[in-house]
Amino acid sequence: MEKEHNFISERTKWKRQVYRIIFLSDTKLGKLFDLVLLVLILLSTFIVMMESVKIFDAKLHLVFVILEIIITAFFTVEYVLRVLTIKNKKAYIFSFFGIIDFLAILPFYLSLFFPITKYFLILRMLRMLRVFRIFNLLDFMNDGYFIVRALKHSSRKIYIFLLFLVIFCVIVGSLMFMVEGHREGFESIPQSIYWAVVTVTTVGYGDVSPGTPLGKFLSVLLMLAGYSIIAVPTGIVTAEMRNKRQNLEKVCDRCGNEDIDDDSRYCKICGEKVV
Amino acid sequence: MEKEHNFISERTKWKRQVYRIIFLSDTKLGKLFDLVLLVLILLSTFIVMMESVKIFDAKLHLVFVILEIIITAFFTVEYVLRVLTIKNKKAYIFSFFGIIDFLAILPFYLSLFFPITKYFLILRMLRMLRVFRIFNLLDFMNDGYFIVRALKHSSRKIYIFLLFLVIFCVIVGSLMFMVEGHREGFESIPQSIYWAVVTVTTVGYGDVSPGTPLGKFLSVLLMLAGYSIIAVPTGIVTAEMRNKRQNLEKVCDRCGNEDIDDDSRYCKICGEKVV
Amino acid sequence: MEKEHNFISERTKWKRQVYRIIFLSDTKLGKLFDLVLLVLILLSTFIVMMESVKIFDAKLHLVFVILEIIITAFFTVEYVLRVLTIKNKKAYIFSFFGIIDFLAILPFYLSLFFPITKYFLILRMLRMLRVFRIFNLLDFMNDGYFIVRALKHSSRKIYIFLLFLVIFCVIVGSLMFMVEGHREGFESIPQSIYWAVVTVTTVGYGDVSPGTPLGKFLSVLLMLAGYSIIAVPTGIVTAEMRNKRQNLEKVCDRCGNEDIDDDSRYCKICGEKVV
Amino acid sequence: MEKEHNFISERTKWKRQVYRIIFLSDTKLGKLFDLVLLVLILLSTFIVMMESVKIFDAKLHLVFVILEIIITAFFTVEYVLRVLTIKNKKAYIFSFFGIIDFLAILPFYLSLFFPITKYFLILRMLRMLRVFRIFNLLDFMNDGYFIVRALKHSSRKIYIFLLFLVIFCVIVGSLMFMVEGHREGFESIPQSIYWAVVTVTTVGYGDVSPGTPLGKFLSVLLMLAGYSIIAVPTGIVTAEMRNKRQNLEKVCDRCGNEDIDDDSRYCKICGEKVV
Repeated sequence: MEKEHNFISERTKWKRQVYRIIFLSDTKLGKLFDLVLLVLILLSTFIVMMESVKIFDAKLHLVFVILEIIITAFFTVEYVLRVLTIKNKKAYIFSFFGIIDFLAILPFYLSLFFPITKYFLILRMLRMLRVFRIFNLLDFMNDGYFIVRALKHSSRKIYIFLLFLVIFCVIVGSLMFMVEGHREGFESIPQSIYWAVVTVTTVGYGDVSPGTPLGKFLSVLLMLAGYSIIAVPTGIVTAEMRNKRQNLEKVCDRCGNEDIDDDSRYCKICGEKVV
Repeated sequence: MEKEHNFISERTKWKRQVYRIIFLSDTKLGKLFDLVLLVLILLSTFIVMMESVKIFDAKLHLVFVILEIIITAFFTVEYVLRVLTIKNKKAYIFSFFGIIDFLAILPFYLSLFFPITKYFLILRMLRMLRVFRIFNLLDFMNDGYFIVRALKHSSRKIYIFLLFLVIFCVIVGSLMFMVEGHREGFESIPQSIYWAVVTVTTVGYGDVSPGTPLGKFLSVLLMLAGYSIIAVPTGIVTAEMRNKRQNLEKVCDRCGNEDIDDDSRYCKICGEKVV
Repeated sequence: MEKEHNFISERTKWKRQVYRIIFLSDTKLGKLFDLVLLVLILLSTFIVMMESVKIFDAKLHLVFVILEIIITAFFTVEYVLRVLTIKNKKAYIFSFFGIIDFLAILPFYLSLFFPITKYFLILRMLRMLRVFRIFNLLDFMNDGYFIVRALKHSSRKIYIFLLFLVIFCVIVGSLMFMVEGHREGFESIPQSIYWAVVTVTTVGYGDVSPGTPLGKFLSVLLMLAGYSIIAVPTGIVTAEMRNKRQNLEKVCDRCGNEDIDDDSRYCKICGEKVV
Repeated sequence: MEKEHNFISERTKWKRQVYRIIFLSDTKLGKLFDLVLLVLILLSTFIVMMESVKIFDAKLHLVFVILEIIITAFFTVEYVLRVLTIKNKKAYIFSFFGIIDFLAILPFYLSLFFPITKYFLILRMLRMLRVFRIFNLLDFMNDGYFIVRALKHSSRKIYIFLLFLVIFCVIVGSLMFMVEGHREGFESIPQSIYWAVVTVTTVGYGDVSPGTPLGKFLSVLLMLAGYSIIAVPTGIVTAEMRNKRQNLEKVCDRCGNEDIDDDSRYCKICGEKVV
């Protein structure tokens, strides 16, 4: 009985240690693990890239395959350990990082049963998102959250803006389809819409460009419009960020007021001292 | 007499119900109607697009025509019902959405009398604007109004800015016409102005690009200018948005003060409690 | 004696009336004059543009020449009247608009003595700047001044920024000259600098684009840099505009404080009531 | 003994004078020295540029070589004097400008021992950075520091943003590699990533552009994304600059409060008079 208890606590202890290493980074081993993981993620992404370059793949195909097997083995062991050592297994498995961790090993095992298709590629590339897990640990992501939050808060406005923009491009594209007759690059309305987006976003590939004087005149109007309305998303995000900036730093303990300037000594709502 | 009265109130009742369904969206039927309308608008736009693609039109021309007839029939019935059920008919007919609703059915009936020309196309595309009517109902457009209002308030400044920019481009274009002699793409002043706008807005198709060293030097100056002055519309809109942001949310009941922070409990002008 | 006095005051009266018509726009005739002037300026600019298009020039050369003579005659009479009727003649002649007014008629008279060269063209285009004189009168330029002032106040910072940018482009261009060997478009350092500016300003003509993998990698870095540092001029101008915004509206009569919010009722410095 | 002392103080005096001329610019000679230095730096950069242009190099190679020798001689003497006359020699030699000063003369002496390679070129171009030393003296760099500081303070956020962007481009690039099959310009994943960066940063060379309808659709999404998220770095830097703006001007002597408006007469925290 004692033995069993000991054994269980042994197991629990072992789990705790492993958990600390792979989920946290407050120990030496935990930091080393993160570093190894980061290197393997980058290496694995690099391999997928290089595989797609014919001259490298011709020479080094075997090396790539072997490295892929080793890395997948490591990721598999890591995934199993993560599932074993965490308490709330279900929450982990269906969390964002849980899914990414699983997708990182999926393509390899799929390829054992199905012929390798190019569609595995994108799955293998999603591994790259795992770097965020490590940055997360390294307390590097506060600024990342700042950006994400600002974008999230402005997202509704930006979606509406994009809706306006898309409808604008559809109408301008149709107009241009009429104007440019059926010249090269304006063969159909979808093509012309493609051109309108390329122009209004100031990308301007030049694979499609207006040929008739009227077409050029309309393009000029469209470019000037695009050059001006780029101000809209910028204005939205800038206004949001200034707001977020202020809100991030301090909160009043008494009244919960979040809008406290960096230089405030007292809450402007209730007069409580803020630290 | 009673009967007639009943009949009239019957009619009025019928009108009210229809009005509620097609103009509002606070009933189940009203919401369903909006959904059907949205789908038909998008479908109709999609058909116009697909018709312009030769390979699709060759195969599916009949399908497109039939769908167009069905959709136009629906839109026509809808338009008639709108005119019948609304009280202020004149105001509706000449309102923005009234005109858009009318233009949505016009091309079909015109095509019965006149040969179909490509100019009908843009009329059919304007239907797309009807989606805003639905977004309007769905309380989705607050942020849209925010953007429109910010653009409206900055519009004078942006027009002036565009005037500066156009005059600048005209003069730079003329200069470039002189410099680049009559090389390809710089055959005339309008052409050179087209190039100047393409460059200063950072679109840069590349269908026209400078060939002489002096031309390239001038281009470099123009690009640097364009890269810097994009700041102007952005600055205008950002400043406007920050202003609008604050003004939108709350107004003080007593003194009419509109500049009330999200976290204010009391009006900063008169001390009135704000909700 | 009386007669002479009368004659003089006649002349003075005549001068005053003409002055009022051509320099101001507070009379009906003054407004008509402005309108005619605006039309002639735009027409004259339009003619210069059309002259440069071969097919129009071939057909309408005579019309263009005659119109040019008429417009120049009008501008000459106007210039003479301006000089005659203004009190401080010297100040006018050497003012910005005085010089522009003079340059507007110069090319024609020069062309009587010298063969017409393409260099006259740019002089004729400068006439376009005269439109600002009219906008000035029409009280349309307040927002224009706002923009100009904001740009002026940020100009030092923007010049420094451009200096940084130019030095950055020179060094990156040289680096790219080394990397891309002597491939097409990178034949010399000035060429490579041209490419660097095209890239960093996100214009991207595509007349020059990197060919080697290392060159593409460097381009990617350069693009990301350009995409990020476009924030700098925008930030400068936005910050300046917000400042200018506040200062424009109101000034405290007592202490001269210019930073008065739109909703202020009392000066925040001295407590004086502000209207 | 006296003599020696005199001699030493002679030397010290001489050193002090030279130091004042080359390190400072508060004397006439010091200003002249700065001017000469500026001209030589620009000339030297100009020569490197011109050398790379074949037609100039063919004609003027000897002139370029002689000028290079003269300028290097001047820079060498200057460098030796700087080391001799400054007190803290080590600090100077390993300072930013010390290294730049040394690198300015290095390529010439290296070329005496090693064959001239194109890699010397970039070293010679780095000389250009020496202009900052002069601008520094001329009190021209306050605004430069303002920009650098704002960028520095936002750099963490911008790095994170670029990290997001790069990972986004890698994934989109891989997706596009799958979609566009192995069409021209999308032969490998690195190539496709290059295209994704060219697109998302709105550079849009057009050397690579999508060919398939699905590819064009994805491009449109990518362009709209790029057009929207350019708001992020701009928002970051703008928010930072507004902060910096305020902090730069004044500081309260008593409480150290840095957020003092341009028009404040009293510190808003402690009520101390601010000058």
